[in-house]
Order: sequence, then C-alpha cells, then structure tokens
Amino acid sequence: MITRMSELFLRTLRDDPADAEVPSHKLLIRAGYVRPVAPGLYTWLPLGLRVLRKIEKIVREEMVAINGQEILFPALLPKAPYETTNRWTEYGDGVFRLKDRRDNDYMLGPTHEEFFTLTVKGEYSSYKDFPLLMFQIQTKYRDEARPRAGILRGREFIMKDSYSFDVDDDGLKTAYHAHREAYQKMFERMAIRYVIVSAVSGAMGGSASEEFLAESEIGEDTFVRCLQSGYAANVEAVMTAVPEVRPLDGLPEPVVHDTGDTPTIATLVEWANSAGLGREVTAADTLKNVLLKVRQPGGEWELLGVGVPGDREVDDKRLGAALEPAEYALLDDTDFAKHPFLKKGYIGPKGLLANGVRYLVDPRVVNGTTWITGADETGKHVVGLVAGRDFVADGTIEAAEVRDGDLSPDGAGPLVSARGIEIGHIFQLGRKYTDAFSADVLGEDGKPVRLTMGSYGVGVSRLVAVIAEQQHDELGLRWPSSVSPFDVHIVIANKDAAARAGAEELARDLDRLGLEVLLDDRTASPGVKFKDAELIGVPRIVVVGRGWADGVVELRNRFGGDSREIGVDGAVAEIASALAEAQP
Amino acid sequence: MITRMSELFLRTLRDDPADAEVPSHKLLIRAGYVRPVAPGLYTWLPLGLRVLRKIEKIVREEMVAINGQEILFPALLPKAPYETTNRWTEYGDGVFRLKDRRDNDYMLGPTHEEFFTLTVKGEYSSYKDFPLLMFQIQTKYRDEARPRAGILRGREFIMKDSYSFDVDDDGLKTAYHAHREAYQKMFERMAIRYVIVSAVSGAMGGSASEEFLAESEIGEDTFVRCLQSGYAANVEAVMTAVPEVRPLDGLPEPVVHDTGDTPTIATLVEWANSAGLGREVTAADTLKNVLLKVRQPGGEWELLGVGVPGDREVDDKRLGAALEPAEYALLDDTDFAKHPFLKKGYIGPKGLLANGVRYLVDPRVVNGTTWITGADETGKHVVGLVAGRDFVADGTIEAAEVRDGDLSPDGAGPLVSARGIEIGHIFQLGRKYTDAFSADVLGEDGKPVRLTMGSYGVGVSRLVAVIAEQQHDELGLRWPSSVSPFDVHIVIANKDAAARAGAEELARDLDRLGLEVLLDDRTASPGVKFKDAELIGVPRIVVVGRGWADGVVELRNRFGGDSREIGVDGAVAEIASALAEAQP
Repeated sequence: MITRMSELFLRTLRDDPADAEVPSHKLLIRAGYVRPVAPGLYTWLPLGLRVLRKIEKIVREEMVAINGQEILFPALLPKAPYETTNRWTEYGDGVFRLKDRRDNDYMLGPTHEEFFTLTVKGEYSSYKDFPLLMFQIQTKYRDEARPRAGILRGREFIMKDSYSFDVDDDGLKTAYHAHREAYQKMFERMAIRYVIVSAVSGAMGGSASEEFLAESEIGEDTFVRCLQSGYAANVEAVMTAVPEVRPLDGLPEPVVHDTGDTPTIATLVEWANSAGLGREVTAADTLKNVLLKVRQPGGEWELLGVGVPGDREVDDKRLGAALEPAEYALLDDTDFAKHPFLKKGYIGPKGLLANGVRYLVDPRVVNGTTWITGADETGKHVVGLVAGRDFVADGTIEAAEVRDGDLSPDGAGPLVSARGIEIGHIFQLGRKYTDAFSADVLGEDGKPVRLTMGSYGVGVSRLVAVIAEQQHDELGLRWPSSVSPFDVHIVIANKDAAARAGAEELARDLDRLGLEVLLDDRTASPGVKFKDAELIGVPRIVVVGRGWADGVVELRNRFGGDSREIGVDGAVAEIASALAEAQP
Repeated sequence: MITRMSELFLRTLRDDPADAEVPSHKLLIRAGYVRPVAPGLYTWLPLGLRVLRKIEKIVREEMVAINGQEILFPALLPKAPYETTNRWTEYGDGVFRLKDRRDNDYMLGPTHEEFFTLTVKGEYSSYKDFPLLMFQIQTKYRDEARPRAGILRGREFIMKDSYSFDVDDDGLKTAYHAHREAYQKMFERMAIRYVIVSAVSGAMGGSASEEFLAESEIGEDTFVRCLQSGYAANVEAVMTAVPEVRPLDGLPEPVVHDTGDTPTIATLVEWANSAGLGREVTAADTLKNVLLKVRQPGGEWELLGVGVPGDREVDDKRLGAALEPAEYALLDDTDFAKHPFLKKGYIGPKGLLANGVRYLVDPRVVNGTTWITGADETGKHVVGLVAGRDFVADGTIEAAEVRDGDLSPDGAGPLVSARGIEIGHIFQLGRKYTDAFSADVLGEDGKPVRLTMGSYGVGVSRLVAVIAEQQHDELGLRWPSSVSPFDVHIVIANKDAAARAGAEELARDLDRLGLEVLLDDRTASPGVKFKDAELIGVPRIVVVGRGWADGVVELRNRFGGDSREIGVDGAVAEIASALAEAQP
C-alpha cells in the first residue's frame, strides 16, 4: 500500500511538548504518533497505530507458536470474583471502579486471573484437557497515581496477558519456560535490548517469577547484574552472596562496654575506634538491629527484629518483598514504650531472643562472624558477639540494601546496577487462584486434581515507547523494520515532473512487491521533508532528488546514517534487498 | 494453520442456555463461541474471536478502500468535551460514568464525535487538508437498561465509527455516499440480507441519515418498505404520501352540532352515523386534536396541538423524532385547568389557532379536505370544516402511526412493515460539533470556514450475532466463508490408523494452500463429531470415514446440506475449488 504524506493525517511538531520529559514521549508526540487526551490517556494517530499493530502481530505470532489460544474477555468486569480472591480490596486506589444503572459494582480490569480460572473451571473437567494455554491482547486500565512518560505508564494501555493451566508442577514449569522462550523471540524480533531478571512475586502471590526489563536510563525499575556470569535480578530479588561459615573455636568471649551516648552506628564506630580495641573498626563490624511490627493478612501485629551489618541500610522495597504478603511498619515511640526491654539505640540479639521477639538477620551474619552490637541496656554495647555461639537467629532475611560492587550470589564477580523498563513478566502462580475457586479436574487416577496456574504479561502498547526510547537519536525516531510503520519512505525532493512521476512509479513498483511505502508527495521544501523523514524514523529512506536527471536516486539508512546512490533502473530490487540492512 | 479439536478450547453444549431467547444467542453459546460474564458482558472464546476478527478485517478493508485513516482513541474519556456539547447530561443513565483517584469525571465512550472534532481542529488548519476521513474499530460501552439477546445488545461491544470532515456540503455528501457504498460492499461480503432505510436524526442532531438494517424477525427496529419501488424507511422517518390538494370552491359551509357526550372518536363516529348526515362516516373522516406541551432545549414549555385523522393514533416514536430535540408531554388535568379554552374531547383547530396555540397537522390534512372535529365547546362538534378555508394550520408533522398498506410516499405501492437489526448508520451531522468547538480552517479565500462533519457507524461485534441469526438452521450455525472461523472442517470418522494418517495429511495439504483447517481428531464417536460440525457451522465439512478404504472422502456443504464423494487423490484441489460454492 502507498500512503501519501499529502493525505496522511499527520502534523509533525517542531518543538517538544511542554509536559514531556523522556525522549520517547517527546518524539512520539512531535512525530505525530500519539496525542494526549487526558493524563495517562492517549490517542493513537495513524503512524502510532501502525507500529502498535505490528507489535501486536509479533506478540500474537509468538503466542500462537507455543500453542496459545486467543480469547477476549470484557474490560468491564463484575466485582464478585475479585471479592473471592480479596483483590477487590487489595487493589485499593489502583483500579477504576464504577457502578452500573442498577448500582452493581464493576471494575475496569487490570488483569484477569480470576476470570480465566473461572472460565477454565466452567469448560474443562478432565486431566486429558491439559496442558492449556490461553491469551488475550486487550485494553487494560490502572488508575496510576502518577501517569507519566506518555504511553510508558498510561492509565489505558494494551497488554498481552496469558495464563497456563496444568495438572502438575512439571506442566507449569514447561509452560513457564515456553513463555520465557516466546518472550525472548518476540523481543529479539523487535530488536529490544533487554535483560531477564529474577523477580519477587509482588502482590500476585506465588513462587518462581522473572521480569523482562528493557535497558533504559529512564526506567523505573532498578536491577543489578553480574557482567561476568550474566546473573541479573530485580533489586527486590537479589540474593546476597553468603560468606563462608567460620569456626567458632578459639574466638574470644564477648565483652559488654559502657559506650556512653552512642545510639547510632556512627557514634558507636567513633567510640569503638577510641576505645583501644586493638583494631580499626568500621560500620561493617557492627550489627544494626531494626525493630518492626509485622502483621500477616488477617493476623495480629507482632514484633520482628532485623539484624543487618551497620554499614548497610534496610532497603524498604526489599524488606517489603521479603515480608510479602504481610504489612509492616517501623516501631514508633508508643510501641517502644509498650516494650520496655527494647532500649532504643542499644538493642541486641540476645535481648530480642530472650524476650521471644522473632529475629531475622542478613545472610552475611553467618555462624562464626563477630559483631559489635547493642547490649540491651541504655549506654551499653557488646563487642565480640559471635553469631551461632552467643545468639542463634530465627532465620535470614534479604532486606539489606544492594550496592554496586557487591559480590554476585554466584560468586562470579561484582554486581552493577542499571535501570530498566518492565516489558514482560512471567510468573508461576501455582494454586493461589485455583484454590480460591476450587478449580479441580478429574485426575488420571479418578481423583480430583487442583489445577496449577501461570500468569504471563507483555506490555504491548508500552513497547512502542520502549523501542522509541532505545532506538531514537538526536534527529528523531528510528524503527527496526519489524515494527516500522512503513518499509520505505520515499522523499520527492525534485520539482521536475519527470522526477515526480518516476517517484510515483517507484512507489507503485515497491507496493507491488508487497512493501508498505510512505511517499512524501507534499509541496514542501526538501529540507522540511528530510527533517520529517528523520523524525518519523522509517529505517529506509529513498530520496528522488537532483540525481534523477542522471538516473540515480539516493538510498539512506536511518540507522547507520549512511547513504548511497543507486541506479534508477535497478532501484526496486536494490531497495527491496537493502531493507534487511537497515537495522539497529 | 491446522487447529485440532483435541486441543481447541471448546466445549459445545447439548442444551440451550436457560436465559437465552433468540437463536443466535442460544447457538453462539451452545457452539462455544461466547460465554456470559455478567449481563451484557461476554467473553469471546477462540471460535467467536476468529469470526469477530474476520468481520473486523472486512470492515477495515472497506474503510481503507474509501481512504479512511485508522486511528484509536481511548475508551476512557474525560468529561469536559461532552459538557461543551451537553451530551454529558443528555446521555443520562445510558453511559457508564466513573471518577479517577483525583475525583475527576470520566465516561466510557459510546461514540467519539467530540474527540474527533477536537483532534482535527488541533492538527489541521487549511482547506487544503480536506477532505478527511478517519475511523476506529474500538470497544465501546453503553449502560443498556435491558441488555438482551447476547451480543446483539451488549454493554461492551466493538464498533467501527468513522467521521468525515469537509469544508463544504458537497464534500460531506461525497463522504456520505462513499460510506454508503462501502457499507453495501462490506455487508455483501458477509452475505447479510439488509435494507437501507431513511432514518431520522435521533439524539445526534443533523440532517440526512440512513440506517442499514439486517432483516430479522427478532430485530428491535421496525421499518416499512414498498416492494414495488424499493423505498424503505425507519418508522420514525416514513414520509406520508400526501393526497392531492382539492378545490375549495363549492364546498358547503361547516355546521356546528350538539353531539352530546362524545369526547372520543368512537362516540363521535357513532353520533355522526345516527345524525343523518347523508353519508357513512368513519373515523378517517374525523380530525383528532392531541394537545401537548413542548419545550425546546433551554426554552419554556409551550402548547402544541397536533391534528391527525381520527382513525390513526399518534405514534410516540414518530412524534418524538419529529419534535427532536425538544422535550414533550401530553397535557394533564392541571394543564387543562390552566387553559380553560381547551375543552377536553371537543378541541378544534379554530379554538387553538384563535388562542395562539401552535397547531400542526398530519400531511393528509391538505387544503380542501373536509373534517368532523371539535367545536371548542363541551358537547359540540363541527361537521364540514375545510382545511385551508376554515382553518390554516401552522404546518405539518409526521406523527401519525404508519400502517401496513399505507401508500408509499413515492406512490408506487403499499408499504409493508418488517423488523430489522441496526448494523450500520450513516449520518450527515453537519456543523453541530464543529460549531460547538469552533472548528474552523482557513478557506481558499483566506477567510475561516467552519468544517462540516459526517458520522458513520457499524456494529462490528453485533454482526457476529446478526450473521448467526440470518444463516442458522435447526442444526446449528452456518457461516458464509468470508467470516467462517475456518475454511474447512475435517471430521475423522474412521478409527483406522491409515484413515487417520490420511486425514492428517489432507489437513496439512490444505494448510499449505493457505486454508484454515479445523481437524476433528478427537476420540469421540462419529455421531458426536457430526453434530458438533453442524453446530459449529464451518461451511465445508470433509468426512474421512468408511469410504477411505475405497479411496474416497465425503464433502459436505453446510448450506445446501448436500454432500458428495470425492476421490482422495484429487481431494485437495477439489475441496479448495469447492469453497466458493458453500455459501448462503
């Protein structure tokens, strides 16, 4: 098909929109791909919709390739199933809720676990019906507190969500790995630079989970990776490299010291280095005990002590993920007052354990490590307290901050942190939802089997912005040919009627080959047309210009920036064969 | 692609669902095309989604063929533009409304005139940019009072809506006729039996308008047509065949009679036939005057008299359409009490006109017609009152009921009524929305031109049900090949391994030709498989059965019901060439 710029609903903008901060947002608006309607709500103009549909097609093809069956649920969903799983409440302000004329409650669905589970339960009844993998490519809604960055974080967006149903864990793992590979293929087809990171479950409940993050400085997700081994994880999911356990034999006994007014790590270290302990003490030699109250869903508040090396902060995201699904809060003064054995600034493992407070430590606090920590009396600390000898914690917790340079858990090298945009998420949900709806089928042995489930998502509309973000340059957008709105952009830069007619003919010939051609047939100046072509970002640009009289046109590569003259006679074949070259 | 019934997410049902009334609803559920989620909300299962996508594709192709440019608006829309056009209020209970976390108002868009107008105004500024035609295929919402008949009248549904923008009326007419032809093509490609009927504007405001109605007994829309001329119109839009004006000369003077207690047409006719008027009187000889109060938007209530022949009721739908956009109500006793000159049951044209009441008559009340009607005194009527001589109405109104047998307005023959389902609507909106948003562009003469606009809709998801409704038979669904979920349905009805392998090979060969094959490879009995094939409704069914041993398979036509044996050797070519035959 030939699309004429003279007719295309498109106005490019010279200036960045005032409220746009990230390059993809600026460029997608300037180049006329999208337009804002309200915060987090965008209209897809013809160019943007073409890219979106190509991405959808790639996602669909890869889902079908792993035997995904496409269905489509409503976006408007009744309340009842979400009440069964408690998500009606858990979603809080994050979803759009509404009532119909009969005062019944609905939400605009952010994800569809409940309805897929109910549908499978309604149709299938035997182990023979499985494995089953279903997906939809659907408009979804989230009432984001801060919609931002254009279509990167919108309030109405398109997602591919899929759900696997299996009768056993092996089936679930197979479906999970099939998705993992399908996602790799689809993102590679779109030329996206991404990493797969271990992820924690978040609000979804369940066990194994990985995220696909597109590498981007403007990403909201921080992850770390080890360049030596390829290990990568979400900050929430980073496992600490555990030091070797040390022998307890021969370690000196702990000694309690009057340390004066030393309620902080800094003051404690200062005291230690002036106390003549015979060695230089750093914050890493101290054990900081953070007191929390924690409440499991439906349970009571309970105290929890978290011990981390004094040189590290407790990372709130990691702490939250580790305690999921429990609520938690730091103790306030009222709480301290209720528990007089807690001497703020001087809390130690022994006091906590002696008073029945659950106590978890950073994985670095292995048996045989020696610590300076609180002695459970105001103004007193203990030096030489040995883990595994003088106290035995109730377990470990991944709550300490992760730093660049920390050793990778596989020991291969240091971790480095980077930022990414979540583009995919794969998740072994297990039986959380099938339990909620008693989704059983008859097993091979004639007994009921509870189904196990995976949930998998790709942010389809977000990918438009992700690709724009990764591929743009200072001149504008650049699209990998798999998602480009057109295959070739022909610029008529010669007013001569013969050149114009030649360009039209070239467009028709390329169209006949099945290529999608954007033809700039406007009366604008060549300079305006070149600028628009660079902004719009079709990877192959053909300029029918002054060379026409000499029988040549110019073939430009929007990625490399290189260009060459090609003979008009063989132009069609040469352009067609050059399409594959124009890639990031 | 080959789809295996053994893997397809599909369970057909033996029994009709309890709440389904119309055949398409029953069959689409029984055959596993859709499943209900809540009233008016349905899930598209794999078979249904395949049909839906094929319909979408046909609609898209025909829109692109008339230079439609596809874009996509959000479904979630902010309030402000709808306030400008007053539709935020006018929609009443008919739309879903909601608030975001910041308490801003939104609606789930039922139609997008406002946003298209604003978008065009935002991008374009010169007459050179027009004509412009844009469309979207989008999920829309209406909070129906009575969602019914499955996907025929849902609360979430898919529509193609398009909007034309032009600088002059000729342009609008061209866009309107282009749509008219595009709709004819798309509905013909889907083998839909439909009529194009004149329609009134309804709540949309504007001038010329036609509806595409699929003929169906279960349709909610009544229309009439003249089989002789092809004239067809919505009941609201039927124009009355106007009798010839008669000469006034020589008509006797009107005479007022004491008619006693004759406040109804029936009692008046009874009186007339016993009064010795020298001729048989029927209700058609009387003029019934109906008193209303009418209020234009933003105006005051005013009285309106409507005169219709006494043998006809005033049709509320036609009255409403004729008075659009005004509100109206019949006078109640309080109203009568306020206007003592209104003698209920004895109201006549002269009294109304003398008291300054606006008075409109049925088009049959032409000059020279003679009527028995009220004499504006209780117990009195006038006989021989001549229109155009004794009273001159303020105009005519199309409010009287339309009956089978009424003459077509083109005089070609009688009107017959039928029922239909609205599948398309084309509408010359004019400047209603461009006025509301002052959407001007620079004209050729350098002066601003107000744009003129058309709006055009196709009920995309509804078409799935419409086709099911028109094409089904007592055995199940039947799909025209253009929208069938598959091209061929191969039923393996032979347990022999060689037959099975042959069927698989046949499926692969057809797949290689680019055909979509549904292969029933289940272990079920042939009887179950045949019943399912009939229910599912793929137009071509190939049975690999007992004949396999003799080198033949059976080729069935789901439409004609006919079947024939074809040789296995030439089967692929014969099946492929037979696809076109299997059509309604």
